[in-house]
Amino acid sequence: MSGIDVTALLDRARRAGLHIATAESCTGGMVIAALTDIPGSSDVVERGFVTYTNRAKEEMLGVTRASLDAFGAVSEQVAREMAEGALTHSTADLAVSITGIAGPGGSEFKPEGRVCFGLAMTGRATMTETMEFGALGRANVRAASRDHALGLLLAALPA
Amino acid sequence: MSGIDVTALLDRARRAGLHIATAESCTGGMVIAALTDIPGSSDVVERGFVTYTNRAKEEMLGVTRASLDAFGAVSEQVAREMAEGALTHSTADLAVSITGIAGPGGSEFKPEGRVCFGLAMTGRATMTETMEFGALGRANVRAASRDHALGLLLAALPA
Repeated sequence: MSGIDVTALLDRARRAGLHIATAESCTGGMVIAALTDIPGSSDVVERGFVTYTNRAKEEMLGVTRASLDAFGAVSEQVAREMAEGALTHSTADLAVSITGIAGPGGSEFKPEGRVCFGLAMTGRATMTETMEFGALGRANVRAASRDHALGLLLAALPA
Repeated sequence: MSGIDVTALLDRARRAGLHIATAESCTGGMVIAALTDIPGSSDVVERGFVTYTNRAKEEMLGVTRASLDAFGAVSEQVAREMAEGALTHSTADLAVSITGIAGPGGSEFKPEGRVCFGLAMTGRATMTETMEFGALGRANVRAASRDHALGLLLAALPA
C-alpha cells in the first residue's frame, strides 16, 4: 500500500530492540495503519496517537497552547512537540509526527500540501522538517505524507 | 477505500452535532484513517487511540488489568472498556472500538478472524458484539473489521 519497505523497517526496529509510536494529524492514522499491515508488527509498534484537534494535541501529547497560538498546528515547533510527546506518553524509543494541510484548500494562511514532520528518538536530538507537497489533492498529500513519515523511520534505524 | 458511505456517516454526525473518537487495536488506525479521508472530517472526528499493546489499552483508555487477565484483549468486556474509555478520555459523544485476531494464526486460544467491537454513545447503553470473520488473511480481516466498525457508527447516527 505504501512505497516504503515497511517489512524492512519493522525488521530493523526489531533487531535494534526499538519500539515505535506515531503522532498523526493530517494523515489520520495512515502511518500506524501501514506499520500494522505487516504480521508480527505487534513486536515493534507500541501505540499511536491520532490528534486531529488542537485539544487532542494538547491533552494526548502535551503540545503547548503557546506553540499552537504562536506557530499554528502546522509548524515544525508543533511537530517537534508532537514527536517528543509521543515518546513521553508511551514506552516507545522512536516516534514520528505528522501535521499538515491535506486540503482541499489551505488554512492558517498556509498552502495546501504543506506538511511538517518530527522524528524523536531516545538519546538523540529531535529532527523536524517541512515538505511542500503542493496542491496534489487530499488523498495524494496524505499518501505522500504517510510515505515520507515511513521513510524517516526507516532512515533513523540501523540497517 | 471502504464499503461504507463515510461521507453520509460524517454528514449524519455533523447534523446531529456529534463528535467521534476511535479506539483501535487490530485495525491499527484504519478506521480513523477512513473517516479522515473525507474533506471536512475535522468538524466531526475528534481523536483516535491506537492501542496496539495491553499497556496502551490500560494507559490511554483505562482498560482494567483485571479484564485483560480474565477475558484477554480480544473480548467484548475489553471492547466495552475501550469504547467507554475513548469517550471518557476525549470530548467525543460517540466512540467505536475494535480488538481482534487479524492473524495469521490465532492467539490467546482464540481463532484468527475473531474480532470484538464496542459502540459507546453519551446517554445510551454501550453495545458490544463479536464477529467471526474466519481465516480470511490479515488484510481481509482488517478491512472487514474496518467496514464493520464504520457500519456500527453509521447505524448509530440518526439518518
